[in-house]
Amino acid sequence: MQADELDAWLRLKLTPGVGDATACKLLAAFGLPQALFAAPRAALETVAGSKLTERLLTEPEGWHELCTRTHAWLAGDPRRRVLTLGDPDYPAELLQIENPPPLLHVEGELAALRQPLRLAIVGSRNPTSQGADNAREFARALAQAGACIVSGLALGIDGAAHEGALDVGGCTLAVLGTGLDRVYPVRHEALARRIAAGGALISEYPLGTPPLAANFPKRNRIISGLSQGVLVVEAALQSGSLITAREAAEQGREVFALPGSIHSPQARGCHALIRQGAKLVESAQDILEELRSTVPSPRSQSGQNVGGSSQDTDDPLLRVLGFEPCGLDALQARCGLDTATLQARLLDLELDGEIARLPGGLYQRCSRG
Amino acid sequence: MQADELDAWLRLKLTPGVGDATACKLLAAFGLPQALFAAPRAALETVAGSKLTERLLTEPEGWHELCTRTHAWLAGDPRRRVLTLGDPDYPAELLQIENPPPLLHVEGELAALRQPLRLAIVGSRNPTSQGADNAREFARALAQAGACIVSGLALGIDGAAHEGALDVGGCTLAVLGTGLDRVYPVRHEALARRIAAGGALISEYPLGTPPLAANFPKRNRIISGLSQGVLVVEAALQSGSLITAREAAEQGREVFALPGSIHSPQARGCHALIRQGAKLVESAQDILEELRSTVPSPRSQSGQNVGGSSQDTDDPLLRVLGFEPCGLDALQARCGLDTATLQARLLDLELDGEIARLPGGLYQRCSRG
Repeated sequence: MQADELDAWLRLKLTPGVGDATACKLLAAFGLPQALFAAPRAALETVAGSKLTERLLTEPEGWHELCTRTHAWLAGDPRRRVLTLGDPDYPAELLQIENPPPLLHVEGELAALRQPLRLAIVGSRNPTSQGADNAREFARALAQAGACIVSGLALGIDGAAHEGALDVGGCTLAVLGTGLDRVYPVRHEALARRIAAGGALISEYPLGTPPLAANFPKRNRIISGLSQGVLVVEAALQSGSLITAREAAEQGREVFALPGSIHSPQARGCHALIRQGAKLVESAQDILEELRSTVPSPRSQSGQNVGGSSQDTDDPLLRVLGFEPCGLDALQARCGLDTATLQARLLDLELDGEIARLPGGLYQRCSRG
Repeated sequence: MQADELDAWLRLKLTPGVGDATACKLLAAFGLPQALFAAPRAALETVAGSKLTERLLTEPEGWHELCTRTHAWLAGDPRRRVLTLGDPDYPAELLQIENPPPLLHVEGELAALRQPLRLAIVGSRNPTSQGADNAREFARALAQAGACIVSGLALGIDGAAHEGALDVGGCTLAVLGTGLDRVYPVRHEALARRIAAGGALISEYPLGTPPLAANFPKRNRIISGLSQGVLVVEAALQSGSLITAREAAEQGREVFALPGSIHSPQARGCHALIRQGAKLVESAQDILEELRSTVPSPRSQSGQNVGGSSQDTDDPLLRVLGFEPCGLDALQARCGLDTATLQARLLDLELDGEIARLPGGLYQRCSRG
């Protein structure tokens, strides 16, 4: 992209009163921003009205500084890009959402934006330690299965999800709510550098944009928009993650949620989502099976061990019984219990569905496969 | 009921090859069992075929002993009854289910069978201690709200549910899988006596019936049939509670399930139910709200504290902020933090949705109501 062209995009982004929806409307009418700013006042007024036209014709405050800053930032590293709506590298999935961001700052591997399977993992910034472990484990398993893990670089679940993907050498994308030169939270500076090394940092906000509360919920639509599905790991009832989940549902993305204890405030948001129709998942495999119908997952066998069940048992009687039919005498010889105790235990196991009573006085352990 | 009439019912129950469905068919054709056994062979053969007719005309083994035993049992306590399908005290809800039991042995308060709101609480016989606590707490809250708690007297969740109802002087019904003179498990003898004192013990099985694995899943249809809804508290994937839940759904009853950790095998059955459409509940109030539309609950305000959320907070900043708008200076004076730290904490709280930033530099805590 030519410097002038980028400058015009930045000017549009900075113009007061031009949100994403207005930007799209103006671009639809005039083509690229350069053409827009070159258009005669009368033409602008027809589309934008007189008040907005006045603003469009006034150079916005801080524009020149932003242009200088952005050119310097781009020159500082060849892996930095500003993608505009008109760029062939602009992610196609974002074009499908309502109000796609006109500009995307990207630092890292552009290829990460083209991974066929992308899954967002989001949740509380104050998770339980089990919640953080779950986020990391799901991210590991899903990344190993070939998914790129998308999140928001926040403390808590977001950070654990990025780290899980990095743990296994997988791909991860972080969508920031600040300018890419203003990583927030500061504690995640090092994590951001690791993400940029193999995946990418992404922001719709101009360089230098500080952390502003209003910007964080807004960028959530990009997290979900870039993903085929969104997994909410832990979220309180008022959590921003629920905004991401709502955006995801509105964008036609799958929403997944992990259940938890009814006594955990961090599970309430997930439970609310499940009641509203989100899919309750217990394992990475649950997610992969759901998404597999739409997107092929190249290494889909690796993700099945998180939260998966096991055929092992702690019950000594079940262990000596095994999965082959066995008579009472043989069983008694194996376990050493007296007949009455053994029969009482067998009834218990039968009621639990652990074993089946077969014709001829034989017992057999039931497979939980 | 006359002795002869009861004896005829017991004979029908004991006749080999006469299950509940066959019994209903025969009763539909011949009226009461006495009329059935007095009918001419040719008439019986038309309805029952020759093989079954042969059995109906043969006195079943153990019949006379059972009659003697049953009469003695009834004479031993005026609060014992045998209700037959034709009895006006037979629970009307059971007449609506497929294959209602022809006979019901009842010990305790017949009025307990006519409580307007009945809810089954079932689950694992090997629950976690939290699961047992949950069962007891839900039973307490629901019993306090006027519901009669129905369960199966098994170890674990069933027992905790009965005890919760008894704790608050509430009503509870236990549906046994054995004869009423053979309480199983033996460890619940004392509990059974307490249930019979204010609620009722119920069994479709003749006196003397020992614990047989096949009988326990069968009686589950009575647990759900007697109830407007079934709450599954904890259940492994192969748990008998899932049979109760399936019966409940087939009978048009509401199915409720408590979520739990994805790492808890005892939560898997509940999660499977939720995926199949059971309502995820976090509090007794959730259940009462769902059932309130169909059945009025006389004291419905009492049950809202189990698992309910609270406006309280451990955050000192939130506590000094309160729910009234407050400026930065006033806030700083209240909490003593320096400006930078305070602003960082406020941004965190705003991102968490805990507080809102108002015009004029004011902050206000958000209500979670």
